[in-house]
Amino acid sequence: MRADLAEGILFTDQYQLAMAQLYFAEGIHDRRAHFDYSFRSYPDYGRHQAGYCVYAGLEWLLGWMETARFGGAELAALRSQTTSRGAPRFRTDFLEWLEAEGHFGAVELHSVAEGRVVHPLVPLVTATGPLAMTQILETSLLNHLNYQTLIATKASRVAEAARGSVVLEFGMRRGAATGVNAGARAALIGGARFTSNTGISHVLGVDPKGTHAHSMVQAFIARGGTELEAFRAFARVYPDECVLLVDTVDTLESGVPNAITVFEELARAGHEPLGIRLDSGDLAYLAIQAARRLDAAGFTDTQIVLSNSLDELNIWQILSQIEEEADRYGVDASRLAARLVYGVGTRLITSHGRGALDGVYKLVAVEDDAGLVVPTMKLSDTPGKQPIPGSKELWRIYDARGNATADAVAMAGEQLEGIELRLHHPHRAGLSRTLSPGEVSEVERLRDVVWAGGGRAEASVSLDLIRARRVADLTRLDPGVRRIIGPHIYHVSITEEVRRVRDDLRAGIAGG
Amino acid sequence: MRADLAEGILFTDQYQLAMAQLYFAEGIHDRRAHFDYSFRSYPDYGRHQAGYCVYAGLEWLLGWMETARFGGAELAALRSQTTSRGAPRFRTDFLEWLEAEGHFGAVELHSVAEGRVVHPLVPLVTATGPLAMTQILETSLLNHLNYQTLIATKASRVAEAARGSVVLEFGMRRGAATGVNAGARAALIGGARFTSNTGISHVLGVDPKGTHAHSMVQAFIARGGTELEAFRAFARVYPDECVLLVDTVDTLESGVPNAITVFEELARAGHEPLGIRLDSGDLAYLAIQAARRLDAAGFTDTQIVLSNSLDELNIWQILSQIEEEADRYGVDASRLAARLVYGVGTRLITSHGRGALDGVYKLVAVEDDAGLVVPTMKLSDTPGKQPIPGSKELWRIYDARGNATADAVAMAGEQLEGIELRLHHPHRAGLSRTLSPGEVSEVERLRDVVWAGGGRAEASVSLDLIRARRVADLTRLDPGVRRIIGPHIYHVSITEEVRRVRDDLRAGIAGG
Repeated sequence: MRADLAEGILFTDQYQLAMAQLYFAEGIHDRRAHFDYSFRSYPDYGRHQAGYCVYAGLEWLLGWMETARFGGAELAALRSQTTSRGAPRFRTDFLEWLEAEGHFGAVELHSVAEGRVVHPLVPLVTATGPLAMTQILETSLLNHLNYQTLIATKASRVAEAARGSVVLEFGMRRGAATGVNAGARAALIGGARFTSNTGISHVLGVDPKGTHAHSMVQAFIARGGTELEAFRAFARVYPDECVLLVDTVDTLESGVPNAITVFEELARAGHEPLGIRLDSGDLAYLAIQAARRLDAAGFTDTQIVLSNSLDELNIWQILSQIEEEADRYGVDASRLAARLVYGVGTRLITSHGRGALDGVYKLVAVEDDAGLVVPTMKLSDTPGKQPIPGSKELWRIYDARGNATADAVAMAGEQLEGIELRLHHPHRAGLSRTLSPGEVSEVERLRDVVWAGGGRAEASVSLDLIRARRVADLTRLDPGVRRIIGPHIYHVSITEEVRRVRDDLRAGIAGG
Repeated sequence: MRADLAEGILFTDQYQLAMAQLYFAEGIHDRRAHFDYSFRSYPDYGRHQAGYCVYAGLEWLLGWMETARFGGAELAALRSQTTSRGAPRFRTDFLEWLEAEGHFGAVELHSVAEGRVVHPLVPLVTATGPLAMTQILETSLLNHLNYQTLIATKASRVAEAARGSVVLEFGMRRGAATGVNAGARAALIGGARFTSNTGISHVLGVDPKGTHAHSMVQAFIARGGTELEAFRAFARVYPDECVLLVDTVDTLESGVPNAITVFEELARAGHEPLGIRLDSGDLAYLAIQAARRLDAAGFTDTQIVLSNSLDELNIWQILSQIEEEADRYGVDASRLAARLVYGVGTRLITSHGRGALDGVYKLVAVEDDAGLVVPTMKLSDTPGKQPIPGSKELWRIYDARGNATADAVAMAGEQLEGIELRLHHPHRAGLSRTLSPGEVSEVERLRDVVWAGGGRAEASVSLDLIRARRVADLTRLDPGVRRIIGPHIYHVSITEEVRRVRDDLRAGIAGG
């Protein structure tokens, strides 16, 4: 009940409802409006920056839209609101309209597919529909897409730093309440292979991962036992999934030797030991030393799971340090790197260094009485913050090698295939680029209808398919753009026609 | 259904369940264990640092514990888990035990009261109970307390920077999915007066706040209307709650004059205009200029709501700038400061600069067969990370002026009143302080039983009471500790007896 009221259609900012009532009072609540969702800039984490984002959150947004309704509890809540003078804030006729029409049945969403690589300043989603309901949709849409895109992006960076090794999402204890479930999902989309979050793993059909904490070893020691006894107990219960945390007492003096003893016992009993986990200290150094001892004992393939404040930069540094130092201890750096697994917690689920994506949802057009689309914009914005007015389409242009070379915003109905393309910087005048047909191998329309007629336009998409989209897009992205520090800037552009519409409107408002 | 499975008892890390099964297999799942919750350091936001935290999340944690159960769906999920060899990961006898005993009926929680000012390195909560269930509790406890304490702390800093002015929580569009509901609650505990989040406002019994966005004005302009017509429409629907957003076209040339026109019309009709909102540009400068124009028109008390990337530092800077510049324009700085209201969004809900509290939940004791409490600790930690072993109590010591001067951890049963107190730094040897009875006005036991016998020890506490606790604690906190930049370090201490127990144990483990 509590969660229902706070997570249904009232999961919105109050001003959306205040505006909806105003539109109703003015008789313009059913006027068709166009809102664009875009983010303004790639996350800048301070010492490192993203050169692309991974779009996530759409499936859950659509799931929310399917059930969000002004039911009895919601209407009673709104009816209870009063002004400072004690008068009802919401009028009966408006509440009756909400009860009958306060759903997303007449809204249409055009969107990029979830999991795709995306870039700033271009409309990833356009919501079209009655002004009142497209307005009420704003907060939930932003909430779903901003956070999951932020986390999928961070996960993709972590996965790139890990160079193909398995990344585990471990962050639920430090993330934002139940938001960690969305965060775990986004991490899985962005590049984490598994999560420690049991509940969401089952919802998504992914195997949850986790072995044991220091407390397990401590519980044995407190009872007069030893670390070795604790490890043996673990191996008895989990002989085929035996990952032992080796830093409760002393990593190299106690943990690793005890783990090797248990691994030898497991091997003799016909089981394959899975690995060890290091959760403190100099992880690169300890990984080398642990690998050396494991190798010497014949366990050359057991995993070495690293955790403790990891993020893309720490992983990158650990791998660099291993490359420099491993040799000195007779350990092969590449073979060690290949057996590493990364448990990434707080810094992934909170997007360390940049805790929010600056996505916005802006009114770009309202249809007039004749159904003509009238572009609109907020003039006081700095040019970089001004959304592109009007009804538009989003395209991705691939160069002769098949790599994505630009995302281009065109007006709806514009044809981009087989012609010379003149592309402009979205807001810096004078910056343009011309692509001849010979320089372009493919022009891809990036958005489709994902919501229409009160429901999803296509059946719900599996996590695996969403993950595959990211992988496919990354293979067609310039490696410079994928760099985790100082990436190349990907080209985001508008067509000649979009520029004309925007400049005309700007002049019109400024002059009018 | 989806949310149920991911937010009930399976809202936990997989390794808690793996360890619980191990404890069950070893026959020690019912052994009473003691786990302490503490955080390691105040949030450090980079350019500024917290000198205290506001403890939040407890009520929601208890609410979760009331309903979290291994029901049919949860058991079916666990039954479906298999090892890499295809064997069931969880055994039937363990699942049967979970079904019968997998609840928090035998767990007891001692905790500080929600809303209290708290400090690092001391046990804010101790969970005592069967090893398996206190272990399973870990993730959810950390999740609830870490995030809400983080946000309540940030909100308290924002409220202090705002010097008594109203702070509104505006962050749901950029926060972490449904976690924003917990974040809004924590912000309200920490010092935000209201939130824009409609649903959670109704759950908590707080009036949701919000007026209109730029889109409302744009919708009028797109239809051939004007900003003034949009403002008039708003005033017609909300004559007694009229806050107008003045920066859609041009703040000082259009927005403010139009707002004044509408305010004059409202005043003539017997209504009191509420205020304007500024959401872009140099907020300090614009607030001065807007105040000047509003004053000249006789609207000397209407609010000026500021929003756009605010946090404690920006608010502090805005007020400093107003103090320096207002005079030059004939505006009284203090009167202007008193009419300001702050809408704080992204940077509050994500705790900008420090996105997580480093709270941990550590096994500190296990009872032996005779019921004796055996302290335990993880030796490999650096001293600052080592929790204090054993069964303990937490006290706050007030100096002769009645100000809090130290929080002290004592062993359970130690008496601290009316004696000379010798207090040690928690981990730095040689740092100690002695307080004579004459220097101490009060010694307060900070923790009480909050959960026992399968339910709350006391009835659920209202938000107002929780908020009042923070306010009361702040009045007894040294102003230097409350500074938002470079605060004084509050004394966190352990008693002579705690030091002895810890040193003995350390020597015992190291030697044994």
